[in-house]
Order: sequence, then structure tokens, then C-alpha cells
Amino acid sequence: MEQTIPNREIILVSYADEGPVTDAHLKIRETQLDIGNVGRDGSAGDVVVQNVWISVDPYLRHCMKKSNDGLYLQNFQLNQAIKSGSVGKVVASSNSEFEVGDLVAGLLQVSEYAVVPGGILRKIDATVAKPSDYLGLLGVPALTAWVGFTIIGNPNPGDEVFVSAAAGSVGMVVGQLAKIKGCRVVGSAGSDQKVKLLKEEFGFDDAFNYRSETDWDAALTRHFPRGIDIYFDNVGGRMLEAVLNHINMKARIPLCGMISQYNEEWKQRYGVRNLLNLVGKCAKMEGFMCTKYFHRRGEFVEEMTGYIKEGKIKYKEDVKEGLESFLDAFNSMFSGENVGKPVIHLTPPP
Amino acid sequence: MEQTIPNREIILVSYADEGPVTDAHLKIRETQLDIGNVGRDGSAGDVVVQNVWISVDPYLRHCMKKSNDGLYLQNFQLNQAIKSGSVGKVVASSNSEFEVGDLVAGLLQVSEYAVVPGGILRKIDATVAKPSDYLGLLGVPALTAWVGFTIIGNPNPGDEVFVSAAAGSVGMVVGQLAKIKGCRVVGSAGSDQKVKLLKEEFGFDDAFNYRSETDWDAALTRHFPRGIDIYFDNVGGRMLEAVLNHINMKARIPLCGMISQYNEEWKQRYGVRNLLNLVGKCAKMEGFMCTKYFHRRGEFVEEMTGYIKEGKIKYKEDVKEGLESFLDAFNSMFSGENVGKPVIHLTPPP
Repeated sequence: MEQTIPNREIILVSYADEGPVTDAHLKIRETQLDIGNVGRDGSAGDVVVQNVWISVDPYLRHCMKKSNDGLYLQNFQLNQAIKSGSVGKVVASSNSEFEVGDLVAGLLQVSEYAVVPGGILRKIDATVAKPSDYLGLLGVPALTAWVGFTIIGNPNPGDEVFVSAAAGSVGMVVGQLAKIKGCRVVGSAGSDQKVKLLKEEFGFDDAFNYRSETDWDAALTRHFPRGIDIYFDNVGGRMLEAVLNHINMKARIPLCGMISQYNEEWKQRYGVRNLLNLVGKCAKMEGFMCTKYFHRRGEFVEEMTGYIKEGKIKYKEDVKEGLESFLDAFNSMFSGENVGKPVIHLTPPP
Repeated sequence: MEQTIPNREIILVSYADEGPVTDAHLKIRETQLDIGNVGRDGSAGDVVVQNVWISVDPYLRHCMKKSNDGLYLQNFQLNQAIKSGSVGKVVASSNSEFEVGDLVAGLLQVSEYAVVPGGILRKIDATVAKPSDYLGLLGVPALTAWVGFTIIGNPNPGDEVFVSAAAGSVGMVVGQLAKIKGCRVVGSAGSDQKVKLLKEEFGFDDAFNYRSETDWDAALTRHFPRGIDIYFDNVGGRMLEAVLNHINMKARIPLCGMISQYNEEWKQRYGVRNLLNLVGKCAKMEGFMCTKYFHRRGEFVEEMTGYIKEGKIKYKEDVKEGLESFLDAFNSMFSGENVGKPVIHLTPPP
């Protein structure tokens, strides 16, 4: 039995190995989604999800490249819908674990509707946090912050913490975790508005604008007279190099990603010249992908839910409406125009 | 009471911040060493040591700079004798723990004789190993290898291990420890003679000459079809960058030092462009100074003494005679002309 619904999805039509992603790479395609077979032979367990919130994250940049250049993520297939973390509503189900109306989260097609096996979905509880928080405070960005800061950073009360891209989806959580753990924390961000946000909304001890402060060495000297114990690196490149001249003995540098470098092929990236500081300071630099820490998600959710209930942690989203806004929202992370975590809201058709 | 003996010592007459160290920086000075007060008021506990073996190590390069550039070592004072690890014989003592004739090791003036407080000396046991081994297999180079490889590298049987400067004083121990721990190990070195030494004397599974193999990426692809789990880095720079494209998930990179970069001021050093691999591979790069691990020396000596007694580990020294040979021995480490750990032997005057 054929039963179709009109659908729209974002597809990758050509790989973008270098430079900004444009509408020559990503396009919206209108299709008819066949949901008539859901629950029939061969698709038992499938669920039809209507997407409501779609996460926009820097790592997606790597899935849009043909070549592998450091993150080793699987690249998107050409002319197929790209995927991202989403929260949606079940509109049809052949899976006994999901009912129509359930709110679910998962890595889904960036589209209005998606037919997926129930096994990739998690039910979410809108009484604990609002649905879009499952893409932020209770989702991958905060898990990333928690893994990097608490597991790799191993903070002690009184530690001096620096966070780059501090107003980003991960950075703003790192800063708040640092305060909860009794550290002093300073962040860098790309506008005065973001600097204000860090200090006034997220409780950072201090922050600076890395665009107007061109001498980062001087900025770090001023902000860290006692040196840096933990540098949560979101940007790589020149900022990482600047920080390496300010680290303390036994410093920890969780490497979360290097957004300043993503639009470049690796040989064109900024070369860090002062790694010898790691030797003299007996310091550690450790990369991580939060997907390798999913086994610790229970622990994370419990801790984070506690902070949310106690009002100890906040989050800021940069909401854009409709699939049409995806490309702009995506590029805003690289230009730094976003304020808060970019997320796409899809309004169901009337 | 004045009692002097003729002495010769190596002094630093000017700092060498960049480029090779020459006889414009290091000079031999002839002096008269006053040993008449040893044991008198104010010098109780002093010991007069006649140096027999003097260690020549890369880190000394940093003590000869005025500026600090990553290792944070204290620089030598101008016009004073430089210091290095030494093994010598007690020729006079006002310290109840040392008798004339005792063999001792410590960080001493690079000179024929030195007057030092007994507290900085350790007695050595020439029945366990020959005296110069206390500057190698039972000294700082092997402790460095042991700390970096076993504590930071955390080897598992079957791990794929790569060592640069593998024929150096630290590298040759790393390779042998890797075999003892059940790993597969490949080393790079700067001559065919050294490559032969690694394979035939030290039991490396394979080795290559980094001077004749100019395409290091190709060499690593050939030698590590299954990738690299532990890279023991002695050189930094371009080799470190080449290795980063070959690491496995959860790889460990102990950073021991970066001899390829020591003669350059930090801004002139090679910039490593592909640190993003650390993120994608959830890999760790950790620097260390063996001085920070002296509290584990007992454990190290016990393990290493066992290997020596069982004949499981070998060492190769590159012995030069006389203080006059110090500068050449030192520079040989940077040109790669040394074969084995450089050590200076001093013959007592007739």
C-alpha cells in the first residue's frame, strides 16, 4: 500500500573540501515520503518522526568533505539527506516502544519528516527540560563539555580555566561547569555582546573579545597572572599556540575540536610551533569525540539534570525558523555571528 | 688552611639562544680548586669528587640559553662551570656517609674535580652494573624512557610502537622496553649504521633512515599498515606531524623532548598543522620531565636491574676521552653523528 506525504529535506549535492559551504553544496529537495509500508514486512519497528528541532553543530562541516582530514567522521553521501541530531514527534509507529505523540530524539535526516528504525530513537521527558534542551543541555554539546572538562580536564577547586569559543554551544556549558567545580574561568568569544553574555549570564569570572584583542599573549598574561591549569580548546590554531606559552605544570588541554581550522585542508592549517611547552610543563593535550563516551551518558544526564533542577546551569539557543535557514545557521558558527547554540525550529504545516 | 689541586672545568662564557653551540660559548678554564677547607667550619659534609664519567644530554642545550623556550630549565650562570650528570670517585670527604674510594653519581660540575655537599651524591654499586651505566641504563636516559613509555605510553601487548631518534640514549631503551612488553616496535634514526644497530643489536622489529627516506608519510604507511598506538617522540617538528596522520584510536604520544627544534628560537620552530587528528582519534599527547618522576626511581631501578641481570637489555655508549671532547660530543647529538649515548671519560692524571 502506498501512502505518501509531501516532505522537504536538505541534501548534499557536492562535497566542500575547502572554504565556506554554500548553496552550491547544500540544497533543499522536495520529495514524497512513502510511509505506507511502515509496519509492514521488512520494516517492522519503523517509526515516522516529524522533526521539530534540528541541531546545527560544527562537526557537520567534516561530513560535508570528501577527504578525511582529522576527525575521521563518515562523510555524507551525495544526493541524500544529510543527518543531524533532532527532536521530533512520532506521527506513525510500527514499534511497540513508541506511540503516536511521543517526543523522541536521535540522529535523523535533516528534513520535515523521517522514517527511521525505532532503535535509533530515545524518548525524551519534557517535564525534565524543554524539548530543544535535548539538543543542548542534555544533548551532545553538553555531553561534549562534560566529557572534556570533567573526565579529561580533571578539574580541582581553584584551578585556572580558559575556554575558547566560550559562548558556543559547548563553551558556555564548560564555563558553568568550571564555576560549579570551584574553578576560576575566563572565556574568549568573538564579539562584545558575547563577552557580556559570558560574564552576566553564564557567570564567567572574566572574558575577552578575541577579535578586538589582537595581542592574545598580552590578553592571557593579563587574565591569567597565575597561569592556566585547564584550557578547553574549541578552536585550535593560533589561540592554542598562544595558550601553550601560559600553561602551568601538569596542565590539561582537552581538545574538543578546532573550528578556526575546519574550512581549510590540513596542510593549509595553522602550524603550532611551541609544543615543547608540553614537555617543560609535563602537560597533557588530549582529543576526544563524545561518541566514544556514550557509555557514560547516564552519569552525565544524572549530574546535568541535577544542575537544571537546582537552577545552577543555563543555556542559550539561537533559534532560526525553517529548513531554509539551515545554511545560514551553519555558516554563522564559522563567522561567529551566532549568539548561542544554533538550532532550527520547524513549524508543522497548517 | 689552603690546599689546592689543579683543576679544569667547562664554563659558559656567553649564552647561545639560537644555532649551534661553539667554542665561543663553551670554554675550558684552568683553575686551582681549594680543597683545604673540606670538613672545616661551614663546609661540614662536603665531599671532593674526581669525575670519571660525564653524561652528555640534549636537555643541556636549554641551560645554555638565556631565554626560556619551552623546557623551563634553569639556565647556567655565565663564567661558572656548567653541570651535568657524572660518576666519579671520592678523593676526600668530610661526610660520614662517604669514604675515600667510594663511587658516586650526581649532578656535578663538568670538571676534573668538584667539591660538593654529600647530600647531592648517591653511592653506586659497581657489582650491579658498570659505573658508566649509572649515566645510561640506570640513569636519567633510561628513567626517561621508562617513565615515558610505561607510565605515559601505557603499553599493551601487541601495540604498534614507533620511536624517533631510536638509536639515541633514550630511544634505544624505549625500543627494548617495547619488546619486553610484547609490542611491535619500529624506530627511525639518522644513518644506515644506526638502522642496522637498531635491528641487529637492540631487537627492533624494523627501522628506517629518516635522512634517506625523505617521504616519511610513505615510510610510516609501509611500516605501520595497522597504524601507530604509541609514538615515543624525541624529535618533534616534521616527524611528529607525519606521525599524527598514522595514529590509531586512543593512541598515546609521550613527548620526551624535541631535539630537531632545540637550536631554534620557538617562533622559528616547525609548526604542526594536523593536531586535529588527536581529536578524531581520541588520542593523547603528554609531555614529561623525568625530574618530576624521581619519586618512582626505586620502582624503575628494580625493574631495570632485573632486565640487566637477565641479559634482556643492552646499551651502547659513544665514549669520548677528556674534557676537550665535550663540545664535539654535545654537537654530535644535534648532527646525529653520535652512535650510542655520548659520554665523556676522564682519565686521572698520572
